Amino acid sequence: MSQPTAAIIIIGNEILSGRTQDTNTQWIALKLAERGVRLAESRIIPDEKLIIVNTVNELRKKFDYVFTTGGIGPTHDDITTECIAAAFGVGLELNEDAMRVMSGHHGPGQMDGARRKMAMIPHGAALIPNPVSAAPGFVIENVYVMAGIPRIMQAMMDYILSSIEGGNSILSSTVTCRLFESTLAPDFEILQNKYPAIQMGSYPHFHGGTVGLVLVLRSTDSVELNRATEELVGLIRKYGDEPRAVAIDTTEG
Amino acid sequence: MSQPTAAIIIIGNEILSGRTQDTNTQWIALKLAERGVRLAESRIIPDEKLIIVNTVNELRKKFDYVFTTGGIGPTHDDITTECIAAAFGVGLELNEDAMRVMSGHHGPGQMDGARRKMAMIPHGAALIPNPVSAAPGFVIENVYVMAGIPRIMQAMMDYILSSIEGGNSILSSTVTCRLFESTLAPDFEILQNKYPAIQMGSYPHFHGGTVGLVLVLRSTDSVELNRATEELVGLIRKYGDEPRAVAIDTTEG
Repeated sequence: MSQPTAAIIIIGNEILSGRTQDTNTQWIALKLAERGVRLAESRIIPDEKLIIVNTVNELRKKFDYVFTTGGIGPTHDDITTECIAAAFGVGLELNEDAMRVMSGHHGPGQMDGARRKMAMIPHGAALIPNPVSAAPGFVIENVYVMAGIPRIMQAMMDYILSSIEGGNSILSSTVTCRLFESTLAPDFEILQNKYPAIQMGSYPHFHGGTVGLVLVLRSTDSVELNRATEELVGLIRKYGDEPRAVAIDTTEG
Repeated sequence: MSQPTAAIIIIGNEILSGRTQDTNTQWIALKLAERGVRLAESRIIPDEKLIIVNTVNELRKKFDYVFTTGGIGPTHDDITTECIAAAFGVGLELNEDAMRVMSGHHGPGQMDGARRKMAMIPHGAALIPNPVSAAPGFVIENVYVMAGIPRIMQAMMDYILSSIEGGNSILSSTVTCRLFESTLAPDFEILQNKYPAIQMGSYPHFHGGTVGLVLVLRSTDSVELNRATEELVGLIRKYGDEPRAVAIDTTEG
């Protein structure tokens, strides 16, 4: 496994309260898989200083990359930037480039105190541009700090992705059938043991009384993945079912 | 704060790969808020034994309740049950009630090895019924172990909720306006300082060039919440905007 690892930290009470459905994790996860980075963990944490600082410090040591979303706006509940500075033991400073970009966006004389807050960046950090509303994200060492609003986060992540080192893209194949999960389980385990480098998952679902089973194989090796997928198709036929879809792709993660 | 705390652990490679959008967190979060339980953290972790065991042991000591979803099916990647047993230092045993319920569901003679695996429950655990596909979840001490399939998880969670001790329901009010976040930020912070027991959040969004701002106040005290909401409405009017929606409810978290 020469793949870099990553963790996501979703910062925001609005996710933990259930008010907002987090979609940032999935979006980032798919992009990372394409880039050959393995997402190892994702956490949702509240807007609380000690928790943010400790979580960032725990995960940045454990994984190659950490991506945070949320809490870099102008209001009192936006405390991510000061927490990142605290986590790295550095101060905040008014970033001239951030001021210039934001002044250009909002117009001269429109940089009130709340907006200036968004131009305060931890010492040593590099900016991540925000093409939507100007206020930038930033990266410090291996921690990438982004906005929580999906459209802005996505633009920031696209910018980041071109610059981070990835591994081989993770390919996946999907096989759908109507067998009971328990019917296939013993043979599926034998297949897994035969191909230990392929990550194999089994996901049943129930729709109006009919059973469906989605089997997912993931690997960076397309030759081995193809071979294992063909064997899986054979196993399903052995139990009298005809697999309904087979796809190998990089875009679905 | 007499509210019990909770953490969610979403177990599954399919979430971390980006293949599946997690919706369990939000669903559980809303139910917990209604029940007066504060969701303090949520984690997505892979199907890996050491990580599951360590995460469960860390969070069950830290919070009043832990809810896990995923990994209790019949296939080789379903390892949650054995991990929970390991976390508590207890063995697995064939549960007679689980066997009876599953045999009734699948029919006599249909309890193959893979299905029997789903009837293996940690010693000392109590079953959580599964009205969809019979294979039960279980609770051991303060850890509730549920299926990952949303429909099954939801049925299990509804069963659980009636039995857990909650606090006062968390009420929330939502105020929507068109001000820039930075315009309102200083007054919003003063309001927060005046009502420290109310959790106040500010969530801007951008739709086709127009700016929108959603302000959310959360508290268990309806009188104080009403008062702070009225003051917030006054602040928005002070800046020449008319708030477009005000609601106090328990269902939106």
